[in-house]
Amino acid sequence: MKFNKKLENIKTYEAGKPIELVVREFGIESTEIVKLASNENPYGCSTKVQDAVGAIVKKMSLYPDDSMTRLKDAVKKHFDIEVPNIIIGSGSDQVIEFIMHAKADSNSKILMNSVTFAMYEIYAKHIGAQVIRTASQEHDLDEFYELYKAQKPEIIFLCTPNNPTGDAISTTDLVAFISKIDSETLVVVDGAYMEYAAFKDKNKSITPKELIEKFDNVIYLGTFSKAYGLGGMRVGYGISNPKIIKELYKLRPPFNITTLSLEAASVAIEDQEFVNNCIALNFEEMNRYKEFVNEKNIDIIESYTNFVTLCLNDAQNSTQISDSLLRKGMIVRDLSGYGMNAIRVTVGTKEQNTRFFELTSELL
Amino acid sequence: MKFNKKLENIKTYEAGKPIELVVREFGIESTEIVKLASNENPYGCSTKVQDAVGAIVKKMSLYPDDSMTRLKDAVKKHFDIEVPNIIIGSGSDQVIEFIMHAKADSNSKILMNSVTFAMYEIYAKHIGAQVIRTASQEHDLDEFYELYKAQKPEIIFLCTPNNPTGDAISTTDLVAFISKIDSETLVVVDGAYMEYAAFKDKNKSITPKELIEKFDNVIYLGTFSKAYGLGGMRVGYGISNPKIIKELYKLRPPFNITTLSLEAASVAIEDQEFVNNCIALNFEEMNRYKEFVNEKNIDIIESYTNFVTLCLNDAQNSTQISDSLLRKGMIVRDLSGYGMNAIRVTVGTKEQNTRFFELTSELL
Repeated sequence: MKFNKKLENIKTYEAGKPIELVVREFGIESTEIVKLASNENPYGCSTKVQDAVGAIVKKMSLYPDDSMTRLKDAVKKHFDIEVPNIIIGSGSDQVIEFIMHAKADSNSKILMNSVTFAMYEIYAKHIGAQVIRTASQEHDLDEFYELYKAQKPEIIFLCTPNNPTGDAISTTDLVAFISKIDSETLVVVDGAYMEYAAFKDKNKSITPKELIEKFDNVIYLGTFSKAYGLGGMRVGYGISNPKIIKELYKLRPPFNITTLSLEAASVAIEDQEFVNNCIALNFEEMNRYKEFVNEKNIDIIESYTNFVTLCLNDAQNSTQISDSLLRKGMIVRDLSGYGMNAIRVTVGTKEQNTRFFELTSELL
Repeated sequence: MKFNKKLENIKTYEAGKPIELVVREFGIESTEIVKLASNENPYGCSTKVQDAVGAIVKKMSLYPDDSMTRLKDAVKKHFDIEVPNIIIGSGSDQVIEFIMHAKADSNSKILMNSVTFAMYEIYAKHIGAQVIRTASQEHDLDEFYELYKAQKPEIIFLCTPNNPTGDAISTTDLVAFISKIDSETLVVVDGAYMEYAAFKDKNKSITPKELIEKFDNVIYLGTFSKAYGLGGMRVGYGISNPKIIKELYKLRPPFNITTLSLEAASVAIEDQEFVNNCIALNFEEMNRYKEFVNEKNIDIIESYTNFVTLCLNDAQNSTQISDSLLRKGMIVRDLSGYGMNAIRVTVGTKEQNTRFFELTSELL
């Protein structure tokens, strides 16, 4: 049977290996495995969220309130915006998918950073669009602008803080860049890790409110998967002007998040104390990674997220090291697929990080 | 800002009104509201599923095992098929979406019944494909065949039992029809309500195993939203030959169902006793609807599902009646949008059905 030609070029997303797989493949007890590969919140999620979800397991038979009024009201309040500015996705991934299908087609060009979140390219390939990438590893907005002028992309993706490298764009630079972009080009500002950046450095903090007040051609993406500790529940959001949101809504399947996810996210956004505590602990623990790489003489990219990217020396091989760690039950992300001799490590709990240092010391 | 032209023609799916909306709009207490509009399982879901999900709420922070090994093994065992025959979707809706994007494009025609599940058309519109419909309300496979020969559709959707009418195609007719279809045309057999049909009448029962053994151009769709009572958890599946599944997999976003949904479905499929009990109760209660319509002199379509479609007389108006019911806290589905003067009512619990009969009697 014949299928669409565009499928021939689609790569599959390489997810962090789940604990279950390491149990199956290497016969390691699940309690012995430490996963620092998917930037999940190592402190889990708020106990308030756990209690709320546990209390409504009977409601699993009921479709969610597809208007998502409660969650949207909570997002509205949190960001000081309006409900028509909001679209909820099954992870911010799904909002990226809506954006791609609404704005681009097989004749479009999509501009993104050389190293960035893999789903931008994957969804671009779904529609057969052409991906244009910058050369530099960090977001170089001058380079972005040159490519924008030369290539006339339909969509520009800016990921700040960037995944999988952890660096962030300054607010001033971001605003100056978007000001130069014509109103027909959609700029996506993916702030999946923005809660961490905002905590660490005000100059890297961007709020959706200021973006949508300034620009009509920008959509801000956020997620409950990281700082809120709900990676397993698949809830993200897009914030933009109502006209753009209305177009994206046309592509939203009904019931795109679960009844329990709706409850979880609605409760999670109200518990900012949990989020702030997790982020404070994250940066405390991140200091230990800085000390570790100093000792070991390897480079670390200054991170505004809940992960660190360790850039290895020429004598070291990221694939070999991450494989060796995997066999010891330590799951990290090898970045060789991104053209980097580096590993990305989620900053875990104190115990998890200690274990990482112990196991990695044996290999370096 | 300009968007894809194809978006102009997209209709939005009209979901059954959620209880929360009726509370907000009409100020009725949620405990007073009966929702018989979305064909949810009125007996909820298995207590084994509730216990299992309740026990892992801590894991909401962890991305699901994206290989879905446990769930796929359970589906494999249940249907006596192989793992490469299976794709899991966020509801069977999402599998429909994959099918549409993998097999069709803006030059394609999609053949479906005059009255059938609304998402087929909605996803066809997402890619700008042309929808061809039969004229008859029940699936008339001769008419399907004539249109197939004349129009050369890329995909044919057969929904059996059909939603929103409840009638089902006989196994013999279905197999004879598919035998006449060329191998390049994909036939989708949507069995979202098949557990009910199989219980009521063996002659309407179709298993994915027999379909994929006989045909290389067929995909069977099933869901955990109906008989398994997990409408809120968004888990469905497609079963087909491995080559088709492999193509659809290219369009599957990572982590397309939640960690709790994966647990729920894996446990649910093992508890067939719960499913069978619910279905037995469903058909017991359905008999009361037959008595009711006899008394009231209105028509009912013979149903192989967990809902009944009441075809009203000319003096009655489905929109008015469903609106009046809504104001009394009884949510049913008006089928005027499908060109029918009919209401679709989920067969509820004994108490819910009694309430339906009481309230509707006042209006007829």
